[in-house]
Amino acid sequence: MSRSAQEGTRPGGGGPDPAELAARVMAGERSALSRAITLVESSRSEHQALAHGILDKCLEKQTSSLRIGITGSPGAGKSTLIEALGAEILRDTGNRLAVLTIDPSSARSGGSILGDKARMEQLAGRKEVFIRPSPSSGHLGGTSPRTHEAILLCEAAGYNIVLVETVGVGQSEISVDAMVDYILLLVLPGSGDELQGIKRGIMEIADGIVLAKTDQATEKSVMLSLSALDSALALLQKKHDIWKPSVIPASSVTGDGIRDIWKNIRTFAAELSEKGLFAENRKKQLHLLLRSQVEELLLKTFYDHPDIRTSLHSVIEAVEEQRLSPFSGAKALVERIIRPPR
Amino acid sequence: MSRSAQEGTRPGGGGPDPAELAARVMAGERSALSRAITLVESSRSEHQALAHGILDKCLEKQTSSLRIGITGSPGAGKSTLIEALGAEILRDTGNRLAVLTIDPSSARSGGSILGDKARMEQLAGRKEVFIRPSPSSGHLGGTSPRTHEAILLCEAAGYNIVLVETVGVGQSEISVDAMVDYILLLVLPGSGDELQGIKRGIMEIADGIVLAKTDQATEKSVMLSLSALDSALALLQKKHDIWKPSVIPASSVTGDGIRDIWKNIRTFAAELSEKGLFAENRKKQLHLLLRSQVEELLLKTFYDHPDIRTSLHSVIEAVEEQRLSPFSGAKALVERIIRPPR
Repeated sequence: MSRSAQEGTRPGGGGPDPAELAARVMAGERSALSRAITLVESSRSEHQALAHGILDKCLEKQTSSLRIGITGSPGAGKSTLIEALGAEILRDTGNRLAVLTIDPSSARSGGSILGDKARMEQLAGRKEVFIRPSPSSGHLGGTSPRTHEAILLCEAAGYNIVLVETVGVGQSEISVDAMVDYILLLVLPGSGDELQGIKRGIMEIADGIVLAKTDQATEKSVMLSLSALDSALALLQKKHDIWKPSVIPASSVTGDGIRDIWKNIRTFAAELSEKGLFAENRKKQLHLLLRSQVEELLLKTFYDHPDIRTSLHSVIEAVEEQRLSPFSGAKALVERIIRPPR
Repeated sequence: MSRSAQEGTRPGGGGPDPAELAARVMAGERSALSRAITLVESSRSEHQALAHGILDKCLEKQTSSLRIGITGSPGAGKSTLIEALGAEILRDTGNRLAVLTIDPSSARSGGSILGDKARMEQLAGRKEVFIRPSPSSGHLGGTSPRTHEAILLCEAAGYNIVLVETVGVGQSEISVDAMVDYILLLVLPGSGDELQGIKRGIMEIADGIVLAKTDQATEKSVMLSLSALDSALALLQKKHDIWKPSVIPASSVTGDGIRDIWKNIRTFAAELSEKGLFAENRKKQLHLLLRSQVEELLLKTFYDHPDIRTSLHSVIEAVEEQRLSPFSGAKALVERIIRPPR
């Protein structure tokens, strides 16, 4: 963890001023951005309050950005593709790139599932790039409302392209769909991913599919996978009426197809913007973020409420000893803190 | 859907009496059980209230049961194993078996992912067996607080063994762990499942692992997979201090290993019971069910609250138009309905 990120979690010390920290984030100060994201990710109440104060300020700034989700099974080559695609994106002068990567944690042990991942060394060395690995504890696949907040902070800091990596395990793709503009799904030739029914939910939210690591597959295997993916796509419901996802064969090693991916993403953004659908999606995403904030805040307020703190333990005991059903117990607790209608 | 299940969702008509329906469930009436589960799965408020009334009554009855979760990737042979294991379980006179299967739905389209599954024909024909396919919409992998409620109803109806099938996609196993006593993970020889890091979270909650469909694999492939699984297990944190999960090679076709699986499950139950851990787990599960009920009820109460109904729309609009941040919006809404501490 960087020094500045540590500072953000330092207890006491008067605490930073949200307006000042927001101003530093918006001035593009990397350390301020890191610190703000650390505050966003913290579960402590005072950090959350501070984070929301910063976000409130940052959201006042008008930004224009493109958010790209990168998903696929472990081993599909997401990191190397992000390296290659990132380099391509930075060929366009003026682009500033933020990459939010996942450090997946097992829900039980808290340990890393994938171990030390190869990091994005090339990108990490460039000054117009900000890379942030985020812990995903408790949120399988890695995206959470926290990821959405981190995206907003990166945008306020002037990064106009944001790549969000998720691990393709189902749940996470549905949630990344609620915070990015374009979802790129990576599939390996001959992996069976293109046929497995379970992937359908993921394919349905993809705006583009990359048949990855083509340098490691035979031409025949690539052709078969391309045709299987095309058939699968033809059967699926369209995500956007005006956009048909393409399957793009690519190799991060040879560079083949990387330019096509970036072109596909820009075409997508242009076509959706033209119809007003880009802004429409962003509205929907803010709406969903509001709903997830409400859910979080409700729960937090519930468990922090003095009336619940004093009665929760005895209700739990009664439920555990089967003197009270979980349904009646929940009802009694919830009714205790909800204000009657005005 | 059966006729009785349909009845449960029939609007109006005075509505059934929860005490009467509960009595019929506890008398072992299959149609009453089906109907009660349908009410549990319904999202309509009046059905939920009725369902909780029935559950409150049913929970008063003391039951003794064994709940077994069956999980594994699509294609691992869960249905056929349930057929074979079910037949083995019913060899022990007096056992009555409930099977809760998953009918997985894609979160987006609502369509079935796996298509028509081969059903459990042998089991379905036996009078001491109750099979219930449940829709899993919105809950990836299929378990939800609803599944837990269905388990409780089956137990009240006199089914002393409950098998709960889940699709091995990550999130669902974590939640099935909160409602069953023993989790059986199915792995195919040579599938790479035993090595893939992503499966670690699932292996950590397994109490037994079946190396399935051994009739379709070479002896060498079976041996390699067994040793890979053993090594993987050795590295993982133990779920219960006193229990070490075994890897059991089995084939639902030849019947090899099926008796060993059932024996393993009974040994598990006996050893945990002896240490008081079985009852301890059940307590934990009731506690978790209380928490999930609280979460659900809080949200429902929030969105149904007249003060929220009148103000939600304008808050959403302000958030979508970026006049208000989602954080400030959520705070304003939640504070509107929470009663100040007494």
